Amino acid sequence: MGAHPGYPDLQGFGRREMKLDIQEVYDMVLYQIGAVDSFLKAAGKKLNHVKPHGALYNKASVDPETASAIAQAVFYFNRELILYGPADSCLMAAAELTGLRFCREAFADRTYTPAGLLTPRSETNALIEDETRAVKQVLQMVSQKTVTAVDGSVIPIEAETICIHGDGRSAVKIAAALHISLTEKGIIIKAPAFS
Amino acid sequence: MGAHPGYPDLQGFGRREMKLDIQEVYDMVLYQIGAVDSFLKAAGKKLNHVKPHGALYNKASVDPETASAIAQAVFYFNRELILYGPADSCLMAAAELTGLRFCREAFADRTYTPAGLLTPRSETNALIEDETRAVKQVLQMVSQKTVTAVDGSVIPIEAETICIHGDGRSAVKIAAALHISLTEKGIIIKAPAFS
Amino acid sequence: MGAHPGYPDLQGFGRREMKLDIQEVYDMVLYQIGAVDSFLKAAGKKLNHVKPHGALYNKASVDPETASAIAQAVFYFNRELILYGPADSCLMAAAELTGLRFCREAFADRTYTPAGLLTPRSETNALIEDETRAVKQVLQMVSQKTVTAVDGSVIPIEAETICIHGDGRSAVKIAAALHISLTEKGIIIKAPAFS
Amino acid sequence: MGAHPGYPDLQGFGRREMKLDIQEVYDMVLYQIGAVDSFLKAAGKKLNHVKPHGALYNKASVDPETASAIAQAVFYFNRELILYGPADSCLMAAAELTGLRFCREAFADRTYTPAGLLTPRSETNALIEDETRAVKQVLQMVSQKTVTAVDGSVIPIEAETICIHGDGRSAVKIAAALHISLTEKGIIIKAPAFS
Repeated sequence: MGAHPGYPDLQGFGRREMKLDIQEVYDMVLYQIGAVDSFLKAAGKKLNHVKPHGALYNKASVDPETASAIAQAVFYFNRELILYGPADSCLMAAAELTGLRFCREAFADRTYTPAGLLTPRSETNALIEDETRAVKQVLQMVSQKTVTAVDGSVIPIEAETICIHGDGRSAVKIAAALHISLTEKGIIIKAPAFS
Repeated sequence: MGAHPGYPDLQGFGRREMKLDIQEVYDMVLYQIGAVDSFLKAAGKKLNHVKPHGALYNKASVDPETASAIAQAVFYFNRELILYGPADSCLMAAAELTGLRFCREAFADRTYTPAGLLTPRSETNALIEDETRAVKQVLQMVSQKTVTAVDGSVIPIEAETICIHGDGRSAVKIAAALHISLTEKGIIIKAPAFS
Repeated sequence: MGAHPGYPDLQGFGRREMKLDIQEVYDMVLYQIGAVDSFLKAAGKKLNHVKPHGALYNKASVDPETASAIAQAVFYFNRELILYGPADSCLMAAAELTGLRFCREAFADRTYTPAGLLTPRSETNALIEDETRAVKQVLQMVSQKTVTAVDGSVIPIEAETICIHGDGRSAVKIAAALHISLTEKGIIIKAPAFS
Repeated sequence: MGAHPGYPDLQGFGRREMKLDIQEVYDMVLYQIGAVDSFLKAAGKKLNHVKPHGALYNKASVDPETASAIAQAVFYFNRELILYGPADSCLMAAAELTGLRFCREAFADRTYTPAGLLTPRSETNALIEDETRAVKQVLQMVSQKTVTAVDGSVIPIEAETICIHGDGRSAVKIAAALHISLTEKGIIIKAPAFS
């Protein structure tokens, strides 16, 4: 279980970037982690990771200051938490600098550009809604550490965790299909943990 | 330091009652305690108490179900926390039932009705903004365990904690005057704690 | 096209009552009508009616002060607008007092108590999701001016407009089925208007 | 009287930029103009102008697409409205293209950079809180069509309207002092209007 803090953009579900200063990002992330953690605490459970949501994820991937503010909020809340984000991003660098463990993430339900970035949601081919395609993409990521971009080129990718967007139309179907396929291949699915 | 959870009534600063069901009250209180606590945790500090804010305070004083939902949220978050509220209220009863410690609260900056309730804010004489009057009221509460109501009658009151509303115009002046007067009388001001 | 002003309860979609004073209700309704009307104005269209939403609808049905505040906001915005609400409600009385035209509303997708009120949403039999049942209920309302309550009793009802909740699972199916059935019976569906 | 639409950034009072698409800007502006206008309508008054607020003002000054979306929302709501903004800005260009009248605005309570822009609020010398300085700046703007920038250079400025921020500490004092000084000089203060 993880916390997915995002911009206070209710109408846009946190998918529209807001220009916040560093202190505001730190406060916002700390606030949201604490809020989620209280439910786990009351239920006798433990928070495992933090992953920025929506536009904050994208911003933190390329902006060192935003990434640093997020990493520090996570660290001062609980330094045992794992930060999730794209491989080789500013978020990954900030986790390392701060002393947080980091988990590289790839997507089952999004296509990739030849540069290894997610195809923006404004493009028609951004989403993968067919579970067979999603499974194929993930199996290639796991077994070959590559992904086939929208132009057909094959690019390297490293991932310890796979994202399926919970608000996607095919989320449940993709999750079920992935579970079956990965299990059949003898690949064990488990929550990221270190030690 | 305490958490003051209230209704999600942004425009009305939580001073307008909302009809929530019990689960919604529990979730709302837990969420807000967790959010505040995260800042204390990051700063190496500890939360001491929880006191419902505004309309939620009034509702919880007279409604056993609301009071119980609040007490349970506090308990499952951290059973060491102290719940604040009016003496002999539903909130006090809920704290006792749940096994939470309770701290009876009185007000330095609000007048009282002959029934021992706060004069509603809609009345012109609800607020005490003169620090001399506020100090006099508190000294009477502490030394005689009574308060003089708006009709001149003297009624019993028990309090272990005194509230000064932070958004009151005279808040700082009242706090300073109280600190001086209580100290002069040899009365020690300290955070409520048990054991 | 109509405006459906409601309480500023974002999390609860306006379905949780808030204790507002009369001026707050007036301002809130005026604000929301104006916001909706601006889109119609920009599109060269005209607003036809106003119908309170969710908890505000229920409150205005039984509380004369809330009903009056709504009716006045509508009147001062545009006295040509039609107010929608339940027959014989406080809202209907307020419309008459204020000089607004009123349109009595009944529901295709909600069951009725023997007292002629909507079965509360907290009851399992509150909603009608089967379009055949919905059509049957409306045809009975139109042809016999009665509705069969949840206990089987037949009670009188008067309606000039029929509500289908847009967020109901069967909304589109009910609307289509109603359109076909009413048309087949030679009943003409048209927007309420006076002149 | 004017409408001051801004970003839906409640915590930041609309002073933090949000990345919205053009349709979102158009809708947001239309919504807010309509909401304000409803109160004027109910009070028998008329809206005179529209001026974007906070971060939206800054964005619209330099971004042609944002400026155009605002100008179109104003135009389709009521083409008689006057758009307010900085001289020679994208907002001014958009008003001209759209066919809206435009009123150039200068500030009584803000300092200017040598480039003729407002000193950012993050700078310590951004605000003018002393009413004598504010009056001096405005008199210079009116009589000489110049302003003295923070580095002492004198730059040209054209203004038909003067802004005093309503949430500034000295707002009332500046307004009073300006009214006296301008009147003494025989300068007539009146609402912008054309024809």
